[in-house]
Amino acid sequence: MSTPGSAENFADKLFDEVRAKASPLVVGIDPDPRLIPPSLFGRPRPGESMRAFLARGVLRFSEAILEAVASHVCAVKPQLAYFERLGPDGLRAYELTVAHAKALGLLVIADGKRNDIASTAAQYAAAYLGDPGETETGKEAGEAEAWLSAADRESPKADALTVNGYLGRDSLEPFAAYLPRGKGLFVLVKTSNPSSGDLQDRLILAGGDPPREGHGEVTVAGLVGGWLEEYNQSRAGRCGYGPMGAVVGATYPRDLAQLREALPHTPFLIPGFGAQGGGVEDVAPGFDRRGLGAVVNASRSILYAWREAADLAFDAAAARKAKEIKEALRKVLPSL
Amino acid sequence: MSTPGSAENFADKLFDEVRAKASPLVVGIDPDPRLIPPSLFGRPRPGESMRAFLARGVLRFSEAILEAVASHVCAVKPQLAYFERLGPDGLRAYELTVAHAKALGLLVIADGKRNDIASTAAQYAAAYLGDPGETETGKEAGEAEAWLSAADRESPKADALTVNGYLGRDSLEPFAAYLPRGKGLFVLVKTSNPSSGDLQDRLILAGGDPPREGHGEVTVAGLVGGWLEEYNQSRAGRCGYGPMGAVVGATYPRDLAQLREALPHTPFLIPGFGAQGGGVEDVAPGFDRRGLGAVVNASRSILYAWREAADLAFDAAAARKAKEIKEALRKVLPSL
Repeated sequence: MSTPGSAENFADKLFDEVRAKASPLVVGIDPDPRLIPPSLFGRPRPGESMRAFLARGVLRFSEAILEAVASHVCAVKPQLAYFERLGPDGLRAYELTVAHAKALGLLVIADGKRNDIASTAAQYAAAYLGDPGETETGKEAGEAEAWLSAADRESPKADALTVNGYLGRDSLEPFAAYLPRGKGLFVLVKTSNPSSGDLQDRLILAGGDPPREGHGEVTVAGLVGGWLEEYNQSRAGRCGYGPMGAVVGATYPRDLAQLREALPHTPFLIPGFGAQGGGVEDVAPGFDRRGLGAVVNASRSILYAWREAADLAFDAAAARKAKEIKEALRKVLPSL
Repeated sequence: MSTPGSAENFADKLFDEVRAKASPLVVGIDPDPRLIPPSLFGRPRPGESMRAFLARGVLRFSEAILEAVASHVCAVKPQLAYFERLGPDGLRAYELTVAHAKALGLLVIADGKRNDIASTAAQYAAAYLGDPGETETGKEAGEAEAWLSAADRESPKADALTVNGYLGRDSLEPFAAYLPRGKGLFVLVKTSNPSSGDLQDRLILAGGDPPREGHGEVTVAGLVGGWLEEYNQSRAGRCGYGPMGAVVGATYPRDLAQLREALPHTPFLIPGFGAQGGGVEDVAPGFDRRGLGAVVNASRSILYAWREAADLAFDAAAARKAKEIKEALRKVLPSL
């Protein structure tokens, strides 16, 4: 039993996994029924809803992928959107996917990009990271509080969650309350999509409130990243990193290099590898000299490798592709 | 049967409701089991999970609130975080809450602040706004596509969704694809929380890429708001507003006034009224001279009015409070 304060830093857990498996690869679990082998679905049972039917196939696919890639990954990242599309049945499949990953000993990063204010953000945090214990504020102690705690313990929870910081620093606090208890966050900083620069690349006048000229400039991504680094500086674990991570896309290697330098205690989750165009040389600047400091997510290129590998079953194709990416990453991270 | 392109503009539907009920009030459905009358829960059934038990009470509460406030509101806004905390049972309660609101003839704004890129954002859009029909790109036509469409039609969908635009303009497109079909969006612009200014108030150098001095300055909130206004300009309905709304908090009345002036075709959803401190005079700058252009959300002050009204049942207390707020809003909107 871990008690608050005694839990291991999430970054230490993550980078221990990276070292143990010599792999900074995270596999994203983004199960799209249109891309899953049709044989996994079979036919709907009499009276079964279409959502329940699809969720069964999605779960079967997700579990098989987890088993296939487990030895090649430091963590897995279920994408909530794909599960949510299937409603309550989909959310049940998400929970069973998390449970299966935990049973395989894998760290789970829930990709939900959640965000809200105060007590509402606290609901999302509890939903995905677990019973808030003493962390939730403004509680009306009593029976309903105990009911909610029991409810929070009925489902397996993720080890980390992606969040969106547009609402400001106080909106991150209900999530950050879980970090001393061994959980992790990855806050969107510089995302991998083509128009991420519309807002994230804009230069703001830094320093002073209101900002004044002459105080230097920082991008929006740099500003948000700075919040995380400030948090992590005094909370770094054995590995030198804190538990408040940043999402920084593989598709902008120059930003990745600059942010790595500016945020030396902040772990990076790097999406955009593979199907979105990022390659091993693009992600290399996200790592420190030990080969730590970052993990790299690939989703579609692994999940749907079977579509271009007629010789292999879908799970074998995923395993082969995950191994291939892991080995390619190791080539640019020789100290790992 | 409405066909794509023929659907009524969401802003017209919303402001028709405002006029018909002489009320710009939106009631937020944020059901916190700790604040709901304990009598609504009863006791868990043998073998019932705690989440199923709590979700039953939450649904009972939400349905009663909808009935109590229906005649005083132009729309209702279920907050997904509270439902998600209860897992699949909670998401089922959300769907039944939406169904009940639709049966009462109410417009539904799902408050999920969802955000992601490309095909992932499209999953959220389908989950909350419905079958994408021809709007989803990159489809692998075939049986799975038909299955997904059928799945999307199995649950009642909202009329509008709140989204977070940190990822840039392309991240809004999968959601915006629903707007020509009569759906609405509310994108976070200036939120009501104390530290919303950490990012949203920062001045950026506007114009030019890379931005250069001498092109004028705009806040981050103003930049994001500008995206919406540009979209709405050519898509305004009878009411003069387009379907791509902005969230602008009641707690910053000066920003509200400036944004109202800068975004004349963009409808506003104004949270932060009541429990968060915003009053009727604070929200008045969000409206045009006709009393249109904005709707005002109140959640806790209405839902939990019973806690300070020992003389009334919880639903009667909510109805009285909703009526009181509606009438107070009408006093500052005489042309409504």
